[in-house]
Amino acid sequence: MKWSELLQRRTVRRFDQKEVPEKALRRMLNAARLASCGGNFQHLRYLVIRRPELARLVFNETSYGGHVRPGRTPHWGVDAPQVFIAVVAPANPGTTIIADAGAAVQSMEFAAFDQGLGSCWLGAFDRARVTRLLQLPVDRELLFLLAVGYPAESPVAEDIPAGAPTKYYLDGSDVLHVPKYTVDAITEWR
Amino acid sequence: MKWSELLQRRTVRRFDQKEVPEKALRRMLNAARLASCGGNFQHLRYLVIRRPELARLVFNETSYGGHVRPGRTPHWGVDAPQVFIAVVAPANPGTTIIADAGAAVQSMEFAAFDQGLGSCWLGAFDRARVTRLLQLPVDRELLFLLAVGYPAESPVAEDIPAGAPTKYYLDGSDVLHVPKYTVDAITEWR
Repeated sequence: MKWSELLQRRTVRRFDQKEVPEKALRRMLNAARLASCGGNFQHLRYLVIRRPELARLVFNETSYGGHVRPGRTPHWGVDAPQVFIAVVAPANPGTTIIADAGAAVQSMEFAAFDQGLGSCWLGAFDRARVTRLLQLPVDRELLFLLAVGYPAESPVAEDIPAGAPTKYYLDGSDVLHVPKYTVDAITEWR
Repeated sequence: MKWSELLQRRTVRRFDQKEVPEKALRRMLNAARLASCGGNFQHLRYLVIRRPELARLVFNETSYGGHVRPGRTPHWGVDAPQVFIAVVAPANPGTTIIADAGAAVQSMEFAAFDQGLGSCWLGAFDRARVTRLLQLPVDRELLFLLAVGYPAESPVAEDIPAGAPTKYYLDGSDVLHVPKYTVDAITEWR
């Protein structure tokens, strides 16, 4: 897929109940490992949660689409993600490692979209409970989860001017609209 | 450019002294605005520093390639970046906004590479001094700089196993080598 097409990627919160091949996940992790990172230190590690029993337990601790609840609240066995990729840092990560995680997640999202997969970057989950489920050692900190699966929705972006509200919303046909500031709204030239 | 080619992108620290067109910078900012961000809040703003007088002052506060100093220390007017994009957050940003910045910078780096540009994500600079140069208001915090220009070097990635040193290095032909952990070195499957 070309870069201009990759930019069409949007977050997906409804998924087909179809298994994600290991090869597709490996391509995502390949993108993560090659992402920019401070000093090339590569402090991040990835746990791929794909056994259904464990994925279900993790899923139970996650939440989705806060602005359109319950319009994009997936249900296990119906439209839930198939896989979670946990992004794990050394304990008490600073700004650089947190930004590294953002770069790695964004890269994985592009790699997913390039293969016809959808993803949802999750920050809203019970970190303490998921940390226990994953049996992370005390010197490791769970930063984010990336939910992955084949998409069962196609959200659309729309341009908004500076100061306009950014809340995404569902239209009458249950299509998710994602307002995005224009370049001019967020940029100053010096 | 296809995704598989975009993944060949590496950080560039030596630049041709050729002007970067506004159109190319706008494409980078378009990628930033469309990057994943927590709750779609879009808190980040971008200052594009391209007037040579200001770019030079900012350049004087930045440093590059700490592991190979002075092998990748650019000099103004010789091989320095042409443009800086400052990534600015609300004051005291939390984990989500810092990770948003990582996602946006990574997206801008892909957009740069897609257009034949090189970039270097900078965390090592005097934030207080650059904040003054940019006359940022007190409710804004400078997170990162992205140095941009046409590349005058072609670094190469090489695979390393778990536990191997991650320091990049220059070979006898002055080519920068960037060791990257394999997928297996950084991934656990659950």
